[in-house]
Amino acid sequence: MKNADILIIGGGPAGMVASATSRQYYPDKKVIVVKKFEKSLVPCGIPYVFGNMLDSPHDDMIPCGEMAEKMGVELHEDEIVELDFERRIAIGKGGEEYGYEKLILATGSVPREPAIENFDAEGVFFVPKNPDYILEMHGKIENMSEIAVIGTGFIGVEIAGELAEKGKKVHLVGSRLLKHAFDPELSEYMETQMLHDSVSFHKDKRTKRIIVDENGRACGVEFTDGEKIECDGVVLATGYRPQTELAKKSGLSMRTGNTIYVDEYMRTSQPDVFAIGDCAEKRHFLTKRTVPIMLASTATAEARVAAANLYKINIVKSFSGTIDVFSTVLGNTCFGSAGITEEDAAKEEINTVSATVIVDGKHPSKLPNNHKQAVRLVAMANSGIVIGAQVIGGIDTGEMINILGVIIEKRMTVYDLLNLQVATHPLLTSGPTSYPIIQAAQNIAVQHISC
Amino acid sequence: MKNADILIIGGGPAGMVASATSRQYYPDKKVIVVKKFEKSLVPCGIPYVFGNMLDSPHDDMIPCGEMAEKMGVELHEDEIVELDFERRIAIGKGGEEYGYEKLILATGSVPREPAIENFDAEGVFFVPKNPDYILEMHGKIENMSEIAVIGTGFIGVEIAGELAEKGKKVHLVGSRLLKHAFDPELSEYMETQMLHDSVSFHKDKRTKRIIVDENGRACGVEFTDGEKIECDGVVLATGYRPQTELAKKSGLSMRTGNTIYVDEYMRTSQPDVFAIGDCAEKRHFLTKRTVPIMLASTATAEARVAAANLYKINIVKSFSGTIDVFSTVLGNTCFGSAGITEEDAAKEEINTVSATVIVDGKHPSKLPNNHKQAVRLVAMANSGIVIGAQVIGGIDTGEMINILGVIIEKRMTVYDLLNLQVATHPLLTSGPTSYPIIQAAQNIAVQHISC
Repeated sequence: MKNADILIIGGGPAGMVASATSRQYYPDKKVIVVKKFEKSLVPCGIPYVFGNMLDSPHDDMIPCGEMAEKMGVELHEDEIVELDFERRIAIGKGGEEYGYEKLILATGSVPREPAIENFDAEGVFFVPKNPDYILEMHGKIENMSEIAVIGTGFIGVEIAGELAEKGKKVHLVGSRLLKHAFDPELSEYMETQMLHDSVSFHKDKRTKRIIVDENGRACGVEFTDGEKIECDGVVLATGYRPQTELAKKSGLSMRTGNTIYVDEYMRTSQPDVFAIGDCAEKRHFLTKRTVPIMLASTATAEARVAAANLYKINIVKSFSGTIDVFSTVLGNTCFGSAGITEEDAAKEEINTVSATVIVDGKHPSKLPNNHKQAVRLVAMANSGIVIGAQVIGGIDTGEMINILGVIIEKRMTVYDLLNLQVATHPLLTSGPTSYPIIQAAQNIAVQHISC
Repeated sequence: MKNADILIIGGGPAGMVASATSRQYYPDKKVIVVKKFEKSLVPCGIPYVFGNMLDSPHDDMIPCGEMAEKMGVELHEDEIVELDFERRIAIGKGGEEYGYEKLILATGSVPREPAIENFDAEGVFFVPKNPDYILEMHGKIENMSEIAVIGTGFIGVEIAGELAEKGKKVHLVGSRLLKHAFDPELSEYMETQMLHDSVSFHKDKRTKRIIVDENGRACGVEFTDGEKIECDGVVLATGYRPQTELAKKSGLSMRTGNTIYVDEYMRTSQPDVFAIGDCAEKRHFLTKRTVPIMLASTATAEARVAAANLYKINIVKSFSGTIDVFSTVLGNTCFGSAGITEEDAAKEEINTVSATVIVDGKHPSKLPNNHKQAVRLVAMANSGIVIGAQVIGGIDTGEMINILGVIIEKRMTVYDLLNLQVATHPLLTSGPTSYPIIQAAQNIAVQHISC
């Protein structure tokens, strides 16, 4: 029997931040993390192990054991198979018992099995956050030359891009790119950026089955319309599901999509038991519906709320729903999105007004490495509250979308943005005369005022 | 007699944004801009014309004539020497009269003459926003090999860096680098980044006089302690003063430091006359004192307020004082600052608490072009309201400091930041587990809660 004060199940970003934060707020408590693998993959780094940027999957691994030791946290490689809330223990698959005062579930997510025939054939890969799997997959993909990537969310698009960089012939299959993060015109621009000679985009095709050869190995893909393509490997980037079997069988209240019910402080239906990250329910900041958003940044925000408030309310959760702030890179262009798209807002019958502004990302534009920068703002038609934003540009897009995240989180209106004070610098930003967040806000405000 | 509805005097960033914004809000009004030169220099781009990034000062010039034509604005190259508020006219130096309904003064700033002997000698340069001057200066500096740069604010530090890049031997003279934007520990780090073999930093030396040769040409600098250095050129980056002689002699109310009095809507003491940018008074967001802050980004924010509200209040000014958001680049490292430093806060007897967090700017850290990223937050000790921030890092520092600008402008506390939702991406940002704005806030909050 190992006795923890604070027991954390899962050692992904949420679990590790929960352990660090617990140590900061409650330095006298003993913290134990139980995780399946000693090392963790940086989840959003996984696509990049298949390109030229990292030498091997090892470069994407976090030495959680070392980190835990530095933090004064005990880490055990084990898999919890049973929870006993009465006795306040978690039981490992070898029978080891872990006692707790406070329990945090951070069991994450695993790839969803798609409705595609032969998805389990040899040469077909998922993209799980499992270091051993990714190492093996990496080795096998090295020897393949033509690969079908099914799915056009972030993971699919990023892996397709990296495999193409690596010299593979890539077939990308799915709907328009990143459709939940970008409105159609920006999605289309994205296509022009990522689709070069070595990527064929089979747009709006749905996959019926993986075609296998006489040895049971994947050798092609058949779409629902009967069209077939050849390949020697398939990557299924068809989404993830919360890993919540343990929670469910332990009797915790569950919510839509097999997520664990949590309140504003990440408390489950069971006293002293918390859930954070991909396994916990997420609600949308605007529609307040349950949404399948799985982001490490949201997970770590939840980890900080849960850990701070384990023994008493120390901090008030400052957000009431996920605003879904994303960024990614395709080729030399970066893409960011926050909040809701205009298309998704229309589906919810929200009246919106939007403006897109395109400027030079440096000023004067003749400076080296200048990159065009497009900012689209989506605001509520009545109040002018900013509810969505999309950015395309250079490397600073990653932090620019975070400005817009704060703007949405703080429910700022386009009027608040009209004379926002920002730093502009020739080598770092667009000019003060054209700073695109402000200019887009002004373009919306002018329409508003004149009507 | 030329009759405008809206007459703008000055065509720097403030004047040009005022004209564009006037056109947007009042498309039926005739807008005339009167400026001294047809072209304008991008003010903060001036240092970069002396390095390797731009081929010539022409690359830093904005063709205001063309821009005006596109906007439907009339532009006249002239210098206004008299204002007659009774007759509602401005008079040019050749006697040309310009009528107006609404007048905006955007007359900017010019270099301040320092208390240094021989500052007007041959081979001594100021850094005015005058295209002809900069062109001539650029030509002369090309042939110089050892240059003293006096002043360690942004312009001095940037020009010194660029001249060194260009292969000149540079003497930089002044107090610690950018002392009003960075606390001492960050200033010192900045020294290590910019001072390489070709830059000698004469720290805390004050310049008494420019030494001139028998032909009256600058050939050295003498400090107040008697030490002398040799050089063949001198750049005086010793600050700017508002260009407000015209306003003053016209009888407008003036404020500290020869700035024009303006209210929240940028209205002067005279009906229908507005002032914006460097010539107008600036007050500090926190201390509410008049401050000599001259930033194009602040100027353009004021331009948008004034222009929108020329004929009626259309928009409410969303800031009540300048928060002084800056960024710059020295070598391969970028620096940003917003709000007040801890040192300046102490001078105002404001009790503060601060934290500095240093992380990798990409995750995993083995990705190419990873750059260390340091974030320092300064908060009020009682309320936890963030009043200052400093960032050192890669190219994304420019937008990261703008996140902090919004945080300060919206009076957010460290508690608001504890679970801020941000996008993190391997190639674009630090990891979700260590995002430094959040981590610095947590380090402050923990101290706060435990006491």
